[in-house]
Amino acid sequence: MVNETQHTCSASSSSKSDGGSSSGSESSKDSSRCSTPVLDADRHERLREKMRRRQDSGEKWFSLEFFPPRTANAAVNLISRFDRMGAGGPLFIDVTWHPAGDPGSDKETSSMIIANTAVNYCGLETVLHMTCCNQTKDDITGHLQKAKRLGLKNIMALRGDPVGEEWEEEAGGFNYAADLVKHIRNEFDDYFDICVAGYPTGHPEAESYEADLRHLKEKVFAGADFIITQLFFRSETFLKFMKDCQAIGITCPIIPGIFPIQGYHSLRQLVKLSKLEVPQEIKDVIEPIKDNDAAIRNYGVELAVSMCRELLDSGMVHGLHFYTLNREVATTEVLKRLGMWKEDPRRPLPWAVSAHPKRRVEDVRPIFWASRPKSYIYRTQEWDDFPNGRWGNSSSPAFGELKDYYLFYLKSKSPREELLKMWGEELTGEESVFEVFTCYITGEPNKNGHKVTCMPWNDDPLATETNLLKEQLEKVNRRGILTINSQPNINGKPSTDPIVGWGPSGGYVFQKAYLEFFTSSEIVTALLKVLKKYELRVNYHIVNVKGQNITNAPDLQPNAVTWGIFPGREIIQPTVVDPVSFLFWKDEAFALWIEQWAKLYEEESPSRMIIQYIHDNYYLVNLVDNDFPLENCLWQVVDDTFELLN
Amino acid sequence: MVNETQHTCSASSSSKSDGGSSSGSESSKDSSRCSTPVLDADRHERLREKMRRRQDSGEKWFSLEFFPPRTANAAVNLISRFDRMGAGGPLFIDVTWHPAGDPGSDKETSSMIIANTAVNYCGLETVLHMTCCNQTKDDITGHLQKAKRLGLKNIMALRGDPVGEEWEEEAGGFNYAADLVKHIRNEFDDYFDICVAGYPTGHPEAESYEADLRHLKEKVFAGADFIITQLFFRSETFLKFMKDCQAIGITCPIIPGIFPIQGYHSLRQLVKLSKLEVPQEIKDVIEPIKDNDAAIRNYGVELAVSMCRELLDSGMVHGLHFYTLNREVATTEVLKRLGMWKEDPRRPLPWAVSAHPKRRVEDVRPIFWASRPKSYIYRTQEWDDFPNGRWGNSSSPAFGELKDYYLFYLKSKSPREELLKMWGEELTGEESVFEVFTCYITGEPNKNGHKVTCMPWNDDPLATETNLLKEQLEKVNRRGILTINSQPNINGKPSTDPIVGWGPSGGYVFQKAYLEFFTSSEIVTALLKVLKKYELRVNYHIVNVKGQNITNAPDLQPNAVTWGIFPGREIIQPTVVDPVSFLFWKDEAFALWIEQWAKLYEEESPSRMIIQYIHDNYYLVNLVDNDFPLENCLWQVVDDTFELLN
Repeated sequence: MVNETQHTCSASSSSKSDGGSSSGSESSKDSSRCSTPVLDADRHERLREKMRRRQDSGEKWFSLEFFPPRTANAAVNLISRFDRMGAGGPLFIDVTWHPAGDPGSDKETSSMIIANTAVNYCGLETVLHMTCCNQTKDDITGHLQKAKRLGLKNIMALRGDPVGEEWEEEAGGFNYAADLVKHIRNEFDDYFDICVAGYPTGHPEAESYEADLRHLKEKVFAGADFIITQLFFRSETFLKFMKDCQAIGITCPIIPGIFPIQGYHSLRQLVKLSKLEVPQEIKDVIEPIKDNDAAIRNYGVELAVSMCRELLDSGMVHGLHFYTLNREVATTEVLKRLGMWKEDPRRPLPWAVSAHPKRRVEDVRPIFWASRPKSYIYRTQEWDDFPNGRWGNSSSPAFGELKDYYLFYLKSKSPREELLKMWGEELTGEESVFEVFTCYITGEPNKNGHKVTCMPWNDDPLATETNLLKEQLEKVNRRGILTINSQPNINGKPSTDPIVGWGPSGGYVFQKAYLEFFTSSEIVTALLKVLKKYELRVNYHIVNVKGQNITNAPDLQPNAVTWGIFPGREIIQPTVVDPVSFLFWKDEAFALWIEQWAKLYEEESPSRMIIQYIHDNYYLVNLVDNDFPLENCLWQVVDDTFELLN
Repeated sequence: MVNETQHTCSASSSSKSDGGSSSGSESSKDSSRCSTPVLDADRHERLREKMRRRQDSGEKWFSLEFFPPRTANAAVNLISRFDRMGAGGPLFIDVTWHPAGDPGSDKETSSMIIANTAVNYCGLETVLHMTCCNQTKDDITGHLQKAKRLGLKNIMALRGDPVGEEWEEEAGGFNYAADLVKHIRNEFDDYFDICVAGYPTGHPEAESYEADLRHLKEKVFAGADFIITQLFFRSETFLKFMKDCQAIGITCPIIPGIFPIQGYHSLRQLVKLSKLEVPQEIKDVIEPIKDNDAAIRNYGVELAVSMCRELLDSGMVHGLHFYTLNREVATTEVLKRLGMWKEDPRRPLPWAVSAHPKRRVEDVRPIFWASRPKSYIYRTQEWDDFPNGRWGNSSSPAFGELKDYYLFYLKSKSPREELLKMWGEELTGEESVFEVFTCYITGEPNKNGHKVTCMPWNDDPLATETNLLKEQLEKVNRRGILTINSQPNINGKPSTDPIVGWGPSGGYVFQKAYLEFFTSSEIVTALLKVLKKYELRVNYHIVNVKGQNITNAPDLQPNAVTWGIFPGREIIQPTVVDPVSFLFWKDEAFALWIEQWAKLYEEESPSRMIIQYIHDNYYLVNLVDNDFPLENCLWQVVDDTFELLN
């Protein structure tokens, strides 16, 4: 990512001192220096610039299309899918506009909210489709304003299909995608990147292939930045179309839409909708195996892979757009076979970034939300500035209200029955709780034979990095030090390290050991005695649900616990233990006992009262070992505490 | 420096969630979090707070009094003395008000400018004396406004002595120090810390000792923060005075004024001015040795040491104020014997800080001015904000005009004749220049037998740290790589390391290797070829006097080359290689060839033309090895360059 080209630059001072030096340079208020470290160009560029950069460098890319789900549960699953498929490194995803589904509303299933979640909470560059037919100009402007407010930066401008059989002009509305493109440019200037649709075999309603090409050119000249095509079945179809586009002066990127055949019925439905004709050779293969889903999918993958290879080998294609039909397997398989799925994508920062434009400089967060990044993004969504370079520079941490467990994208992926199996149908005491924590750490099944794959504070299995601490974590959880967050100390590993690495290559990453846990007041009393011995080395914050807070942090200053040193840059310190934020996190961490766990049980039930007791009486503790080059002393601190108790 | 006391704090979120958690905390705009890392409490506290903190912790301190010099040359020397005596760690220095010397003017020798230089350029907490007799109220207000503008925060409010024999009231002026104290509080509220004078044996003009005590109480109650006493000869005198002050309700700190006898004549003169009586036992010792300066000074040191010990042992005295008479030896000796001279004071940052209040958050600077910190302070004096936490956050670097070599406090301490002996009465070619650089590095005498103890870019001998690189530096300077700044790479040394350490204890400091030099275009051409091999590892900037600039720095971003990791804090990165600032530094670095060196010779003389040739044709190069954990590769880069040239 480092700009390696040698370039000649001449900043403000040099021109004024040309040829002489004794008079010196005049002071200058305008500097060409950028004020933020560009750790990852992708966070700063707009979509069309990203495409251009990849085209220049020859790096092939892909994008993924999804449609909005029908139910809230399906929305939760789709967001998980965004996270999983986002890990493969798509350049962008796009969300279709579903006119029948109240697409601009605040419903969990609306196109707008799904796209919003993708960009803000999954950190994905996102294109929102928008159709213009059957909508007034004001409706459309309203949708676009909302999209902008939510941080969406890209619109796929479409005409859409008429509601009835016949096409009717909407009074005061738009009849063509080109009108919508013009409207976006008129009303929003250059804010949005705009995509339009291309039809390699001509739009089914067009007079002719040539007429449709002219229509496409009109859309592009109205202000579109790139074209995504309708699906097609032969690479020649696309390559001819591309040449024809270029011949009439269309120079923007044209991205082929790839449809891996995933089943007989979905193919038939799509073909019907798109009015495309399936080539005979494909029909010949599919018809005999139409009831064998696996066979059809395998064939579809083969077909897509070979077509994609032809496209890429042509040298004319830099990116591939996949119609996923909201499914993972076939598309992922095609991308893996093409070598385009990034098995181990480099992380720009140790935590999941948001793609909202106002957060693009954000590079510091409190460590507390490490397992709940979506909650953190939600609770800071109203901030105008985000910490950049250091936490201390941010405005006061005005965290949003604590109600995020009502948000669909933070809902547990597991239903209540499954959670009860994992966390206990019936708790018999605090020890039952210790056992749940321990099973989560070890990955061993609980006494009823169920694996504990998530916890109220972490909806995912243990992070790879945490595995480095597994043995010690198991020991302490068994004895009632209920860990919810931890990291090992790291003394200068390469930034490319597959487990703890992040940031540009050529750098070194560091961590201070961190341990965060709930525990009883008895253990806290012993711990505080032990901590006196470690006064200079260990920083601690100990707080109960009432906010009684014991700490040795100097002057409420944040403590940087993860940082990286990179070639030619200032230091990046992406996670801190911030004493003030900790008290906001404390509210959330305690509330999760009740909201996610206690409420699984009947009111007044013994199980519920056990959780309530822990909530009311335990302390939340965090410990930092400042001596990162030495062996982590936090386990010794805990051992000493247990010894004192014995 | 870490606040080690365990304290209970309750930040904004906790009070609102008291007793419950499911409703969560409300967002809060007012946070008690401070926005800057308090690396060194001394940079943030006012003088009276520093005194209180030392009193609480039992740490003994000292302060030093100076008077303004009579000539500009003496001013240059006094500023050097501030730097040397500042290294011993005084809590503050004070500068007397010299009514006959136009004390509020902009002259190099005025009280105001000397105090300004001490606070801004020597980084010393400074008390400016001010007298009120024979001055109008407006004069005084003007002086105070100017003092405030210059960053002075402490005033010693005095009546002063009448100009003639008789005391005359100034119309519209003040007649008593108490009036001046009131005036300062009226006009400047709590901005200044105010000191007043106490007379352990009563003011010579006072009606009685008791009347003088009442007068002192009046001054304190008018708003003074502490008292410095007139000198005295017996510790009992001070201790009785202190008890008498306390008895009448004076509770502020009272600092004894210590006068180490340094010579017969200075003692006589002082005694005459202060109307004090020298005790017979002292006279008895001094009279017989009055012509033996060394003997008197030794006796004075003995006497002062034993008196100071008595004062400190009394438990009533926390700080000692020394009347230095602008001399170093006796005071330094007394302090060393008392164990109060801090031989190796911890550096809060690797560079010399300024004590101007607006710079108290400053903790990042470009490395280029490492040997010219006063020039850097001068060229940035108009800035409103100073980089804190990172360079990138600062406003555009609008560097002040380049004329600082006209400033008295940046004048070379060596006269022209001495510089000519060091740098050559007559240069015979570029090689003569190479030799000067080499002798400066090695410390060996030049061919005429003179040691080169300073250079145009560095008025002091080589830094201890640079000594670590001595052997390599010698080799490259001999061959025309004329180094002016360098640092070795450091991979996590304790912050208490005597050579490279800085910042609070318990931390670790790091550096990237840095090398900055002038060299010919022939060498630059070879160097650029070699650098291709090190493209990912070494960042470079290569610029000539015309501003032609070759660099591989990504996006004009600063590169942190010194940083420290401390317990419970964010990361401090006090020096950076900033590409934009480098072009301002380039102007200064090239100008020094002409201003400091070429101008030693006659116009049109061959020596002058050689320097002019170098100025016009050489390049200024800086190199950073980003791989700080590995062995510094910059010497290899230079070796490869020479090899390529052979």
